Amino acid sequence: MKIAVDAMGGDYSPREAVRGGLQAIEEKNLQIIFVGREEAIKEELAAAGYQGGLNGPVSIVDASEVIAMDEHPATAVRKKRNSSIVVANRLVKEGEAGAVVSAGNTGAAMAASLLTLGRIPGIARPAIAIPMPTLRGVTILLDAGANADCDPRDLLQFGLMGTVYAEAIMGIPSPRVGLLSIGEEETKGNRLVLESHELFKKSGLNFTGNIEGQDLPRGLCDVAVCDGFVGNIVLKLTEGVAGVLLQRIKEILTGSLLGKTAALLIKKGLQDLRSQMDYAEYGGAPLLGVQGITIISHGRSKAKAFKNAVLFAAKAVEEDLVAKIRQAIEDYKGSGRK
Amino acid sequence: MKIAVDAMGGDYSPREAVRGGLQAIEEKNLQIIFVGREEAIKEELAAAGYQGGLNGPVSIVDASEVIAMDEHPATAVRKKRNSSIVVANRLVKEGEAGAVVSAGNTGAAMAASLLTLGRIPGIARPAIAIPMPTLRGVTILLDAGANADCDPRDLLQFGLMGTVYAEAIMGIPSPRVGLLSIGEEETKGNRLVLESHELFKKSGLNFTGNIEGQDLPRGLCDVAVCDGFVGNIVLKLTEGVAGVLLQRIKEILTGSLLGKTAALLIKKGLQDLRSQMDYAEYGGAPLLGVQGITIISHGRSKAKAFKNAVLFAAKAVEEDLVAKIRQAIEDYKGSGRK
Repeated sequence: MKIAVDAMGGDYSPREAVRGGLQAIEEKNLQIIFVGREEAIKEELAAAGYQGGLNGPVSIVDASEVIAMDEHPATAVRKKRNSSIVVANRLVKEGEAGAVVSAGNTGAAMAASLLTLGRIPGIARPAIAIPMPTLRGVTILLDAGANADCDPRDLLQFGLMGTVYAEAIMGIPSPRVGLLSIGEEETKGNRLVLESHELFKKSGLNFTGNIEGQDLPRGLCDVAVCDGFVGNIVLKLTEGVAGVLLQRIKEILTGSLLGKTAALLIKKGLQDLRSQMDYAEYGGAPLLGVQGITIISHGRSKAKAFKNAVLFAAKAVEEDLVAKIRQAIEDYKGSGRK
Repeated sequence: MKIAVDAMGGDYSPREAVRGGLQAIEEKNLQIIFVGREEAIKEELAAAGYQGGLNGPVSIVDASEVIAMDEHPATAVRKKRNSSIVVANRLVKEGEAGAVVSAGNTGAAMAASLLTLGRIPGIARPAIAIPMPTLRGVTILLDAGANADCDPRDLLQFGLMGTVYAEAIMGIPSPRVGLLSIGEEETKGNRLVLESHELFKKSGLNFTGNIEGQDLPRGLCDVAVCDGFVGNIVLKLTEGVAGVLLQRIKEILTGSLLGKTAALLIKKGLQDLRSQMDYAEYGGAPLLGVQGITIISHGRSKAKAFKNAVLFAAKAVEEDLVAKIRQAIEDYKGSGRK
């Protein structure tokens, strides 16, 4: 299996992308195609001590252009046909790679996949599905930011795709699907959620009803559905609140001699907590609904995050996630439901 | 000054409402009117050791009905004309009290104020303005849940009202107003935010542009504006993430002998942190845009939260918050802006 890694994407590229890719092939039998400026990639491979040549588990596909973090996504993708993210997606489209991983400009990664790979038939809007750590494990939140404005059918498709993802990748049988709202009762919510609730009730999904903001970190469902505007705020707010609190705790633990002593006593526990909150453990978020596996990683990804994103991409290829989503959409259509 | 306290509202009523009201008159020269079942209130006054009679700083207005937490707000308010929350609002309407404080059914408290007090002329949708603790102090978030669906003019009015609130109550000159969105650039957001951004730019407010989810806990603005659907999710998610994290830290600090020792060393720091995150310190949230001061408190409010809500209500009366909002709306209209 071949995974295309956008070596130029992310704040620490190509260094961390290259190191992460190399770490992945140490853990799993797969091939990495690094896509980007050939010389820069070769330098990073050398710097990382890689001596295995470029015809085995590691190869390079040269792409001269780079899309910067602040470029307008769709415009940049259309103009820069030889950018690393566009070329990496083309490899998937042409069957040269099974999946693509990028930590670059999120909008550009999305646009490149949408334009190059296209949508799964029947899917109106592909969505970013992000794993969020909770008290009980992980909840898949979607859409985490691909679509700022959605209609009820979009939300229903997010529920279907999230269900397939949770079953296939996380091994959760009959995942609980919740609709993010502002009250448990089905009469609570905005127009979008009220109308979506009706669709979800008849959907055949394991729909557990509305969930509220405080239910998310408690892990009350396996798949949480919302529009991309709400989802992106939820994602960033969660990061922000956790970040501020952990910073405060750190200040307490470093601000005095007593604090420093305490820090030594609970070092292990705090490390576990931090690692559980660490996005790098989860690797990245798939763009569900396109005709191929696309994993979008955090712009701040370091080697570990790239490694986990590659391993996650490999799992999605093995489980044939795209075919399963296609089937779920066809089955839903075939069921005569709206 | 007289403050009407809905003695029957909240999970621990009338006990905590009565104790909180009594604590408030110990701190400030004001009069409390407890509204609710007279006998129950008298019992709680006695249990709290109050012996001052009912013609001085403490009085009771009997209200035989109670609106339960799970009743349909508007229906209950229309039907139960003699419920504590409706009677308390009527006291404000008739000039018998300067403000009302309730920790009951939030929807019912809102509906009672809307129906009894009415809107300030020109205000389309009153909004709940909630103080959220941040790294730098407090940010006022509105709307925190009164209006699930809003239009750009609503959001602009939230910005105006939030500005008046931050100036008058918190003493912040020219408060920074941010629009909650999914990117800093003005081209980022859903349709509502994109259209609102245009209005805010021309509003004459100290508009600092879009803020993102992670900016909220960092306190990047004094007033954060969003629709009530997003605001309510933000509020509850923040509570949820902080709650889960503090619970985890607690487990670390109680799960082992080392942890317990560490807990002793950093006791003071942790207490400060918890108290800063504690909604009870902030008392409650005003419903801005109605013709009177209405403070809505958390259903789980204990005496301290009631006390702070009463003191906050008194401050809002002293500062004549309603008149200042009325003036701001008139000035805005008079400025010829949309």
